Amino acid sequence: MSQHDAAPTPTMRWHGDRLDLVDQTRLPHEAVMVPCPDAAAVGRAIKDMIVRGAPAIGVTAAYGLALAARDARALPREAALDALREAAVMLRATRPTAVNLFWAIERVLRAADGTAGDGDALMAAVTREAEDMAAEDVATNRTIGQLGAMIIPDGANVLTHCNAGALATVDYGTAVGVLRAAHEAGKNIHVWVDETRPYLQGARLTAWELQQANIPATLITDNMAGHFMARGRVQVVVTGADRIAANGDTANKIGTYTVAVLAAAHGIPFYIAAPVSTIDPAIADGSFIPIEERPPEEVTHFQGRPVAPLGMRAANPSFDVTPAELIAGIITERGILRPPYGPAIAALYAAKPGAAASRA
Amino acid sequence: MSQHDAAPTPTMRWHGDRLDLVDQTRLPHEAVMVPCPDAAAVGRAIKDMIVRGAPAIGVTAAYGLALAARDARALPREAALDALREAAVMLRATRPTAVNLFWAIERVLRAADGTAGDGDALMAAVTREAEDMAAEDVATNRTIGQLGAMIIPDGANVLTHCNAGALATVDYGTAVGVLRAAHEAGKNIHVWVDETRPYLQGARLTAWELQQANIPATLITDNMAGHFMARGRVQVVVTGADRIAANGDTANKIGTYTVAVLAAAHGIPFYIAAPVSTIDPAIADGSFIPIEERPPEEVTHFQGRPVAPLGMRAANPSFDVTPAELIAGIITERGILRPPYGPAIAALYAAKPGAAASRA
Repeated sequence: MSQHDAAPTPTMRWHGDRLDLVDQTRLPHEAVMVPCPDAAAVGRAIKDMIVRGAPAIGVTAAYGLALAARDARALPREAALDALREAAVMLRATRPTAVNLFWAIERVLRAADGTAGDGDALMAAVTREAEDMAAEDVATNRTIGQLGAMIIPDGANVLTHCNAGALATVDYGTAVGVLRAAHEAGKNIHVWVDETRPYLQGARLTAWELQQANIPATLITDNMAGHFMARGRVQVVVTGADRIAANGDTANKIGTYTVAVLAAAHGIPFYIAAPVSTIDPAIADGSFIPIEERPPEEVTHFQGRPVAPLGMRAANPSFDVTPAELIAGIITERGILRPPYGPAIAALYAAKPGAAASRA
Repeated sequence: MSQHDAAPTPTMRWHGDRLDLVDQTRLPHEAVMVPCPDAAAVGRAIKDMIVRGAPAIGVTAAYGLALAARDARALPREAALDALREAAVMLRATRPTAVNLFWAIERVLRAADGTAGDGDALMAAVTREAEDMAAEDVATNRTIGQLGAMIIPDGANVLTHCNAGALATVDYGTAVGVLRAAHEAGKNIHVWVDETRPYLQGARLTAWELQQANIPATLITDNMAGHFMARGRVQVVVTGADRIAANGDTANKIGTYTVAVLAAAHGIPFYIAAPVSTIDPAIADGSFIPIEERPPEEVTHFQGRPVAPLGMRAANPSFDVTPAELIAGIITERGILRPPYGPAIAALYAAKPGAAASRA
């Protein structure tokens, strides 16, 4: 797969010997593709948020392993596997919260382990697995979109937080995929876009995607959501997710929890849209999800310019956890999960043993 | 009064023939005093948010009338009163939400009306009234601080939104005054400072004031408040107010309502600190408070640089309304009002007829 046609600017382009990533820190003003010729460059791109969004960093890491396998193709089997495992350790250390990263790395390593032969054969298997995952991601998102569109009433004002769009995935998006599908189905919708401080993924990325898709949208600062809810101007909320615990507690971009509390206070349904790969059945509840703390300069500075006084201390947790009881439904490619989520999630895994965890 | 010693950078300096205002759009990086030689310059400074904060714009408008009276000092009585009324119309049109602006203008016009003589006598009366109001503002804030400090537990993490500090008043501040008084009383407190998008009064002004006062504080983006509340790291919330209706509903900087909903969801007491002049007994409830809509560029741009894609629509309501039932207490210079606020506010006016509305 060399490109993804639906988005004018693709999240990533795979060239076989190189992964190009659009620099999401510079969007929407510049669409610059950053070439990643090896796994180390891929790791830096994830860490520096050149690429972000749980599904996108999963597939990106898979391509990173494909590049590591390529660099190890002349090696005998065990040395090539060691090189892959070393790259996996490096890639796992880039960001702690989104489980898709760990899921994707596991899946690629399993494909390598299950392949006979030396470095050349491993390279072929790992590359194929990464390419499959990229293709599946788009198909998954289109299914999530189709299913999720059903919960968007015609005429609805939908609020979303952060960017769970084409740029957070290989293409189409999860929460934004739901909006796209509702719009494509002819529903008249309007989207409130939370700007999503400190990184402004809403203002920079979601606003841009919706504008390109001609979906009516209005940008607001995060602290305006409650005001518009109180005035009856929000009918439904849909966001993405970075990790969903076995009980349905969901980690997502900082501020999501606040939106969920506000939605509950106003009787507005709050939905999560995410692939099954975002579910981490090994984690009992949200209290066990590691929350990444990013540099305080992302809060005290704005695109390199200080906004706070010098020396001001700042906190920067990159995610928060929304408890399951605030979530009306979790829109996955295998259906919309409804509370209680523990049994619903357990049923996903029981229905196709191993499937959800590997190639759902 | 030529200066206010407690703050190293005063909100305003009155020179008799000129009002200097610190340019709050450029703080904390530059402390530039903007000279206002006449009422028109004062009006522009309020509109452009060179000066902001309900009590501060009230006193600023009073000085604006003093400058108008000065320019009319050679005129006969009626012509001078006309000039004053004309300046009042212009000043009233600068910003719609904070009631202190209208309260201050009314009070000064009443002082003029009650003064015999021509332009010279009116100038003297109006100037004295403005100077009195500035002095009273500082005394009022110190009283609010003393009373409010009692509701801050030793060891508390206190969250505040926007800037209700020395810079929002003539000096000392209302909500920040409560923090100052608690700190001065030897209580060990730590403050979570909401950055307060889009204008970043928290990051730029409150952070700076707390830093100068050596009060431990941590800057957060507005969307982090819920996260820290859920983790038990906020014990009390105190904010300022721009207008309080007769039933206790309170308009304050956009985002205040969201903080109040979050506080209620976590069982955290939410307090307002404001002078009695912020109460508007003529307004029955919050639904009648006019909410200023500011330019969308304040949301789509950051210090003149675009963050959203070009042409992106944005909303920018500058205030929201927190319903009385979410407010644990309203800290005024005449005591801490407790629910139900309707009777508490009525009692304020009954206790000293006319006093609350004029020189409380």
